[in-house]
Amino acid sequence: MSASTVTLDDIVAAHRQMRERNPLVQCLTNTVSVQFVANALLAAGAAPAMVDNPEEAAGFAGIADAVLVNLGTPTAAQVESSRLASAAAREAGKPWVLDPVGAGGLPWRTQVAVELLANHPSVIRANASEVMGLAGARGASRGVDSSARAADSVDAARSLLDRAEIVAASGDVDHVVGQGSLVKLGGGSALLQRVTATGCALGALTAAYCSISPNALIGAVAAHAHVAVASEIAARSTSRPGSFAAAFLDGLDTVDESLLRELVRLDTA
Amino acid sequence: MSASTVTLDDIVAAHRQMRERNPLVQCLTNTVSVQFVANALLAAGAAPAMVDNPEEAAGFAGIADAVLVNLGTPTAAQVESSRLASAAAREAGKPWVLDPVGAGGLPWRTQVAVELLANHPSVIRANASEVMGLAGARGASRGVDSSARAADSVDAARSLLDRAEIVAASGDVDHVVGQGSLVKLGGGSALLQRVTATGCALGALTAAYCSISPNALIGAVAAHAHVAVASEIAARSTSRPGSFAAAFLDGLDTVDESLLRELVRLDTA
Amino acid sequence: MSASTVTLDDIVAAHRQMRERNPLVQCLTNTVSVQFVANALLAAGAAPAMVDNPEEAAGFAGIADAVLVNLGTPTAAQVESSRLASAAAREAGKPWVLDPVGAGGLPWRTQVAVELLANHPSVIRANASEVMGLAGARGASRGVDSSARAADSVDAARSLLDRAEIVAASGDVDHVVGQGSLVKLGGGSALLQRVTATGCALGALTAAYCSISPNALIGAVAAHAHVAVASEIAARSTSRPGSFAAAFLDGLDTVDESLLRELVRLDTA
Repeated sequence: MSASTVTLDDIVAAHRQMRERNPLVQCLTNTVSVQFVANALLAAGAAPAMVDNPEEAAGFAGIADAVLVNLGTPTAAQVESSRLASAAAREAGKPWVLDPVGAGGLPWRTQVAVELLANHPSVIRANASEVMGLAGARGASRGVDSSARAADSVDAARSLLDRAEIVAASGDVDHVVGQGSLVKLGGGSALLQRVTATGCALGALTAAYCSISPNALIGAVAAHAHVAVASEIAARSTSRPGSFAAAFLDGLDTVDESLLRELVRLDTA
Repeated sequence: MSASTVTLDDIVAAHRQMRERNPLVQCLTNTVSVQFVANALLAAGAAPAMVDNPEEAAGFAGIADAVLVNLGTPTAAQVESSRLASAAAREAGKPWVLDPVGAGGLPWRTQVAVELLANHPSVIRANASEVMGLAGARGASRGVDSSARAADSVDAARSLLDRAEIVAASGDVDHVVGQGSLVKLGGGSALLQRVTATGCALGALTAAYCSISPNALIGAVAAHAHVAVASEIAARSTSRPGSFAAAFLDGLDTVDESLLRELVRLDTA
Repeated sequence: MSASTVTLDDIVAAHRQMRERNPLVQCLTNTVSVQFVANALLAAGAAPAMVDNPEEAAGFAGIADAVLVNLGTPTAAQVESSRLASAAAREAGKPWVLDPVGAGGLPWRTQVAVELLANHPSVIRANASEVMGLAGARGASRGVDSSARAADSVDAARSLLDRAEIVAASGDVDHVVGQGSLVKLGGGSALLQRVTATGCALGALTAAYCSISPNALIGAVAAHAHVAVASEIAARSTSRPGSFAAAFLDGLDTVDESLLRELVRLDTA
């Protein structure tokens, strides 16, 4: 609540760190998004490593700078790997991001997501329905509304702050919630909804940014800002989804300080 | 046999329903195609959900509007999920489409495909060789010819109508076969063969169209028409496969009533 | 050592064979690259088949013209399939390529890669660090240096020639090492490093080329030349990674004898 604790200067500084430090992000993500997530990290200035088998997941979390756990198409082995990698990340003090795809709508994976909260993610990144679904599975929310707006999920997000440092609900206006803070980000492009895996890519960038930012609040906001600006740039060149997907990756690469200062719509009210 | 039971007006009406109702398609598909299938559904006006684990596959089939089962890269878990999801779709009266990739050429998956026929798919969507391979595995065909043309597979297709409502064999001229009906569709682009997963995307669109069409024959024909027209539009802008893939997705989005009326080549002879 | 045994004419002749014979490549590859690898093979003139389950892997190796085993995201089932397919390829006298992604850095998969050497790959295709990591795991190298240049890995590559016919280390200058031969290839584009799975695609093309070349040395060099030239053509049209990915696939399709003669930088010194 109260005023934002993130400034445009914070976002610009985080972006500079991303380009200078090229953080390595271990991704345990779904089969739909895995190529796009890797390309999004590369385009934005990070390095991907999709190490998601139970034999290597924990060990690699000690090597990577951050970990993404995305539950889009969980296999039994990947769920086991997610437990191991998130526990190892917590143990090693590395940031890790939980993207609870489908939480609330699908009981089995919702339960997996709830269990993973025991490893205290740095950020839960999701859409509003998933935030509400995850909170609801813990008895703190009124359940899932698939047409929920991010603003509707703020109470549910707050109820999750006993487990996660930050909860970020993406939408027309992204809402990033921490203890005593609520940052809203406008902008972006409706075309993001017409291409699969853009949300998953945002989760991966959130992990990358958390590893090079002073705190997870700045990391989460900087990632959402980078994606919003990249999508706006991309939407200037096309209105169709196939070409937008490539243009969005180009946009992630194009984003620089000047574009961030021009296009980020940070609501610090 | 006899006259076609699908008109251009039927296709146009189905396309309008697709855009208005945005059907949710559960996809159990191969790792090669999974991203492209999701993007193709989004571009065409449907919504994808890749729920393919045994824990959730049956439950989600009750929520989705249609189910796609594609056997391109089957794992043991995915085969189990395919059984569960197709049975649940049948139970719930939801249309489901079987895409028996590699049937005839690969014995194990051919047997899986034959077993799945027990759940009575709305549509078997395949190329001519796969239709003949699947029929052959049931003893009703002369076996696989990898250079088979769709016209060559009509007898094999008919032999499968005791299990499937419709059998659609894609090729230079698509042949969609039902009880007492044979619809042929020309057009399309040879570039579809130069990009992986375009056939898989057609299977997913067939599932989507079946869920919003008066019957599976119209659904299957409308899906093939949508893909053919999108590919023709795409081929106007490029002759190379990398850029064609994005242009094809753009084309799926671009297709409208006017383009359907101009470009669909329905053979009702 | 000594002079190269590959000429520009050899590369041109191999490329002509690729287009004429359209070899079928069985790919056991990672989830990140699987779509891109299939599209790269199609664009270059080969045919992909992603048959990677234990039930079918060995049988299909007898049908395919070549086999690729890539350890990017190995599951337990895929490791088993890799053992079966590589053994079957060796048995059938088909070329097979090992791409030991992450070898040296990740102990479990490094051990898998070492075990697969027992099936005597035609080519080990990797970056310099992975070549050194794989050799190091057999006690013949000083270990992994993630910033290693291909030239640094030549001794490690030579130590692997008791198991592999050819070891190809990609980098700014690719180094292709065989018994008594060392071929260096310049050119290419730095953008290849900004898009995921370009190295995996090179591994698949190496398998394809080995199946239609007089020997594995020519096959490996021709594949690296095809990729280098395609990337140079692609980099003429864009400097951004999202559009480069599509342009690279277009470039693989565009490459012809004239472009090979103009752009291949073969170092026969």
